[in-house]
Amino acid sequence: MNDTAPWITFRPELTVLDCTIRDGGLMNNSQFTDDQVKRVYEACIEAGLDYMEIGYKNSLEQFPKDQYGPWRHTYEEDIRRVVGDHSPEETGLKLTAMADAGGKSDWENQIIPKKDSVLDYIRVACYAHQISEAADMVRHADEMGYKTCLNIMAISIVKDAEIDQILNIAKDLPLDAVVVVDSFGNLYREQIDALVKKYASAVKGSGIEVGIHAHNNLQLAFANTIEAIILGSNRVDATLLGLGRGAGNCPMELLIGFLRNPKFELKPILKAIQETILPLKQQFDWGPSIPYHLTGQMNLHPRSAMAWRGSDAPDDYTGFYDKIISDV
Amino acid sequence: MNDTAPWITFRPELTVLDCTIRDGGLMNNSQFTDDQVKRVYEACIEAGLDYMEIGYKNSLEQFPKDQYGPWRHTYEEDIRRVVGDHSPEETGLKLTAMADAGGKSDWENQIIPKKDSVLDYIRVACYAHQISEAADMVRHADEMGYKTCLNIMAISIVKDAEIDQILNIAKDLPLDAVVVVDSFGNLYREQIDALVKKYASAVKGSGIEVGIHAHNNLQLAFANTIEAIILGSNRVDATLLGLGRGAGNCPMELLIGFLRNPKFELKPILKAIQETILPLKQQFDWGPSIPYHLTGQMNLHPRSAMAWRGSDAPDDYTGFYDKIISDV
Repeated sequence: MNDTAPWITFRPELTVLDCTIRDGGLMNNSQFTDDQVKRVYEACIEAGLDYMEIGYKNSLEQFPKDQYGPWRHTYEEDIRRVVGDHSPEETGLKLTAMADAGGKSDWENQIIPKKDSVLDYIRVACYAHQISEAADMVRHADEMGYKTCLNIMAISIVKDAEIDQILNIAKDLPLDAVVVVDSFGNLYREQIDALVKKYASAVKGSGIEVGIHAHNNLQLAFANTIEAIILGSNRVDATLLGLGRGAGNCPMELLIGFLRNPKFELKPILKAIQETILPLKQQFDWGPSIPYHLTGQMNLHPRSAMAWRGSDAPDDYTGFYDKIISDV
Repeated sequence: MNDTAPWITFRPELTVLDCTIRDGGLMNNSQFTDDQVKRVYEACIEAGLDYMEIGYKNSLEQFPKDQYGPWRHTYEEDIRRVVGDHSPEETGLKLTAMADAGGKSDWENQIIPKKDSVLDYIRVACYAHQISEAADMVRHADEMGYKTCLNIMAISIVKDAEIDQILNIAKDLPLDAVVVVDSFGNLYREQIDALVKKYASAVKGSGIEVGIHAHNNLQLAFANTIEAIILGSNRVDATLLGLGRGAGNCPMELLIGFLRNPKFELKPILKAIQETILPLKQQFDWGPSIPYHLTGQMNLHPRSAMAWRGSDAPDDYTGFYDKIISDV
């Protein structure tokens, strides 16, 4: 089709991060069992993935233990109960956790020196207006010895001038990557193009990579992830069976089937999905469906769709349509 | 994001075709009730769609009445039982039927003069090696008074030199459109780009439009449809809730939510899905799932995945993986 056919080879510098437990935790208050986390961990290793994000570094005060499972706080003893003295060298897998800005994380205390942790990488997530705290968090995590990245969430509702300002701060931070995060699953291909190019241009020469974290409201998470890869993104997020908030994430099974790096193995992904993730469908709803399509199309947070999908009439699509039309 | 932001406006010459009943008929031997067809028909009118493909013009001999419903043959009396003396002028909707090459259609007898039919448009489908019969079918339908198009199926397994040869024939046929058909749901964005550009280049100056008919094996049907539109495709296929063979088609609810032509209305689409299409999920399986991902990734006909999804262990993904790996 194309004489160059770049999709038949691969870029060795492209790394894949599994955030099944972290993002999926938004659907079940991070109440995964140790066995579930262990099976995902083992699948990540067997599949040859680069990173597994095992949970949030969020505060006990905001997310108390009687309501939230251990993967909302990811204390060292909880992680080690699953992964033991995890060795990145032996397994090929590095562990990450995500800390939210905006008072959700007690990051000064929760992010301990890397020499005392099995974590390798801290990902800081913030909304646009939280960039100054996020920058402090990145610097703290860097001082503690971690690789870091910055995930600027809900980018589809941030104006270009504000994105430019944020990237101007980000380019001088000690970051491994800055990530395009389409939290509302709103963006189309041309919009992803414009954002990835903007991010890449802003961090050019800094050594910072551009990442992609897509949501699947419009069945575009995989397509938009490919698109970012085509444009040079080397930090890619996905989850098993797309598990994640609302419409979910880029499905790992599609991503690994697309990438041509022979180090990746699909079958362990399929096994973990079949045995560990698919049964969760009995407990809560995620993945593309019409309420999520509608919030995605309207560039809205998925919370109203999540509530609708959890109601007695999850498939009353016209009812949900009427509701969100009258809400705006 | 982009100063030109073309996605915020629309091209009036872009037409949308609903092929729910035609393509969905591959899942239930075209055994839709008259009421089901009528509700889809009414939804197409209320939503402002341009075309509804109401069934196949396939032969009674190959597809006998004791096994196949009326929408496999779409005789005039069957269509009129649902649509009456359908008026394209009053409804804004034109009706189409698809005739397959390769002996599946008794087209010399089944395609009657347009003046005696409520159909406006005949779509001829063929595999690459059937192009000569398909060309005869197109000429016959044109002589009978219909607009016509040519759907060259399973294009992901056809070599470039053969596609060029087919397009060289197509450009001289009396066609409204020639359609890029990704029957196996195998193609990625860059491959769609190459094909759409190839088709457009071949028919340039002929007045023939380029169409897109995508399947959803890799959750790329909508993304690839958008991509073709961006590149100038003005004939676009979709189905309600993506109903169609195997992984299904581009979902109409996503397409109509994306297009900005104010003549299109989303709510009638949602209503028909909720009341008429969603209940069919109890009867047969369609839409993206891992077996379809795997046949899509491997550029295979979805028939083995369809059989697996209809078996006692539809979610034994590793079993299916082992099977198709050993089959190739």
